[in-house]
Amino acid sequence: MNVLSLLGELTEVGRNPTSGGYDRLAWTSADAELRGWFTQTAHARGLEVETDRNGNLWAWWHAELPGTALVVGSHLDSVPSGGAYDGPLGVASAFAAIAQLQDAGVLPGRPVAVVAFADEEGARFGVACAGSRLMAGALDPDRARNLRDVDGISLAEAFAATGRDAVHLGADDARMRRIGEFVELHVEQGHLPSSTGEDGLGAAPLGLATSIWPHGRWRVDIRGQQNHAGTTRLADREDPMIGLARVILAVREAAGRERALATVGRVQVHPGAVNAIPGEATAWIDARAGEEDTVRRVLAEVARATGFSATEESWTPETRFDEDLTTAVNGALGSLHGRGALPLLPSGAGHDAGVLALAGIPTAMILVRNPSGVSHAPEEYADDDASLLGVDALAEVIRLRSRALA
Amino acid sequence: MNVLSLLGELTEVGRNPTSGGYDRLAWTSADAELRGWFTQTAHARGLEVETDRNGNLWAWWHAELPGTALVVGSHLDSVPSGGAYDGPLGVASAFAAIAQLQDAGVLPGRPVAVVAFADEEGARFGVACAGSRLMAGALDPDRARNLRDVDGISLAEAFAATGRDAVHLGADDARMRRIGEFVELHVEQGHLPSSTGEDGLGAAPLGLATSIWPHGRWRVDIRGQQNHAGTTRLADREDPMIGLARVILAVREAAGRERALATVGRVQVHPGAVNAIPGEATAWIDARAGEEDTVRRVLAEVARATGFSATEESWTPETRFDEDLTTAVNGALGSLHGRGALPLLPSGAGHDAGVLALAGIPTAMILVRNPSGVSHAPEEYADDDASLLGVDALAEVIRLRSRALA
Repeated sequence: MNVLSLLGELTEVGRNPTSGGYDRLAWTSADAELRGWFTQTAHARGLEVETDRNGNLWAWWHAELPGTALVVGSHLDSVPSGGAYDGPLGVASAFAAIAQLQDAGVLPGRPVAVVAFADEEGARFGVACAGSRLMAGALDPDRARNLRDVDGISLAEAFAATGRDAVHLGADDARMRRIGEFVELHVEQGHLPSSTGEDGLGAAPLGLATSIWPHGRWRVDIRGQQNHAGTTRLADREDPMIGLARVILAVREAAGRERALATVGRVQVHPGAVNAIPGEATAWIDARAGEEDTVRRVLAEVARATGFSATEESWTPETRFDEDLTTAVNGALGSLHGRGALPLLPSGAGHDAGVLALAGIPTAMILVRNPSGVSHAPEEYADDDASLLGVDALAEVIRLRSRALA
Repeated sequence: MNVLSLLGELTEVGRNPTSGGYDRLAWTSADAELRGWFTQTAHARGLEVETDRNGNLWAWWHAELPGTALVVGSHLDSVPSGGAYDGPLGVASAFAAIAQLQDAGVLPGRPVAVVAFADEEGARFGVACAGSRLMAGALDPDRARNLRDVDGISLAEAFAATGRDAVHLGADDARMRRIGEFVELHVEQGHLPSSTGEDGLGAAPLGLATSIWPHGRWRVDIRGQQNHAGTTRLADREDPMIGLARVILAVREAAGRERALATVGRVQVHPGAVNAIPGEATAWIDARAGEEDTVRRVLAEVARATGFSATEESWTPETRFDEDLTTAVNGALGSLHGRGALPLLPSGAGHDAGVLALAGIPTAMILVRNPSGVSHAPEEYADDDASLLGVDALAEVIRLRSRALA
């Protein structure tokens, strides 16, 4: 059970024929196929599969053992036209690592689980890490049930359409207590400065994330007066597109001044006809930085420059991964390959690992080199050597942290 | 058969519950309902109904008479969240005018037809006046068949789904030869300067359009590199949203400098996820002015200011309505109501009447006062007095131009 061939089994699932990327949004048919693959892969290795009340998938290796579980994994869903690695690399590597230990005759000393969290990207209903947040009690189940996708389908309806009952969504305290430690392996995203002074992992195939930047999402609604594009004098226009354009430029300028990351990746224009001045335009702002104050300053500057204020849709404070666990993982990986300490770097991206860390579960993240520097796009890439090394690393972490007997 | 009650029958057809406007795009279920209404209304007055090979609807009053036909009418489709009057007012007024003549015992001296042209707004497949252009041979049927809506459905597929065969789309020379004159009654759109020196019709309930401004549609495709919004440094970004914002602002600035009308009413952003830098953004530009050169200068200035060039998707040169017919209509209306000459004004909006005029058919346009100044929006409005007067006017025009015997 090789990580490359496991990922190869997913090449066609949710593939967008135009972009070559993947459309694997939560609770779609592509998502169902990925879940089928998870179950088959687990069963092939004798792991016991269950879906929890929030739709997260678990494959247990020796669930009968005493003690809290060592959990490894990530997620399977993608952004629209996303890459093949963000999420699936962590899940496939977890299966491959357990298979490697099984083949070596290793037995864990505590329960080990592979997890695939539901709806990590939030690409369909707008809230990232919905599955892990619900489990941790960090997302109100009423709010979750009423989130709607662009077609007006609620999360509750989408969930029900897969044969599950959204009435059970919500905090899963017993399960949270059962998770002793969580280690998420993930493809590197972008090239943020690392502890080695390099941009990103540089020549190192693996690294460790130390923290997740504080980050949030905001919505700017701009109202105008819908009218005919061919008959309305410029002086009579209330065209919300002008405000939209100013917001887009102001977001970039403020991010540059504050050395933050801020992006308008989604806009909505109503009615969106070529020959009509729109009546309404909406922009969504994604903003992140090393410090919370920096993010807040970006939003304040955009409001000052444009006169439009933004409504906060989500906010995640800075999250630090567990230092002891990270040090232990680092030591294990360094000694395994004789490379010394791995580069440490912050993550600009949010992860289920962050949600669990915020909820008090000791958590660490292994990053696998992505030479493209691109993520959330078809070009996203983890090279084969680094991916194989990532599995070795994860197997070593499982061996050490599950107090395995070999 | 009163024009107000006829329009009242359509209040619920395709109504958008959120905006209060109308979604009556071509070849949708709302469009089918409107076509049913057309047929019922015609049958109630003994008119013979046919649908031509391009999907345009015709109701004939004494088709058996010799000579070319006097055609009156407009269209029934709308832009998304459009108003209740743009299109339907002309069709309902045509029926009401014929009913008025029938009730007065008038018999026409030549065939008279009410027409509802298909897909005038072009809101679904992007080409305005598709029905009349196809009939006139001004739109290539192969191009038309392959136009696609936002869901990827082709015009041929949408046409076939209504039980028609798109293989017959194309120039309808016999029908064109049969049209002797075309008079389109239409709600006033915006307030362009009129011959009386007023903005728009001012206090006058009716007016006449003398010409349609040259106008066109252009598409600007901006490519970038899709990437993760939380991990890609500003310096590494190729974010097409920045270009999109510059295009929107440059279009408005160039229109202001050139005293033209230019609008970005539709944009498309791929993939449109909050946490992804888009890989691609597209803006559509609608530009119009009194002179063709002015429109061309607007486009050139946008290209110069932004570095992005625009691809022409459609172009319509200046169209002048028939002077003799317009003078005759003006004389008839003036004498009818003892008001003297009606205000004359150019139209910034394109119309099926323009397509027929360009094809050499003598054509005139009667405009009905719109106090709101708003069109292509829920607020679009023709006041009742003006609408009723419009029907009287149209009846008088039909009486005079059909050499009616009363």
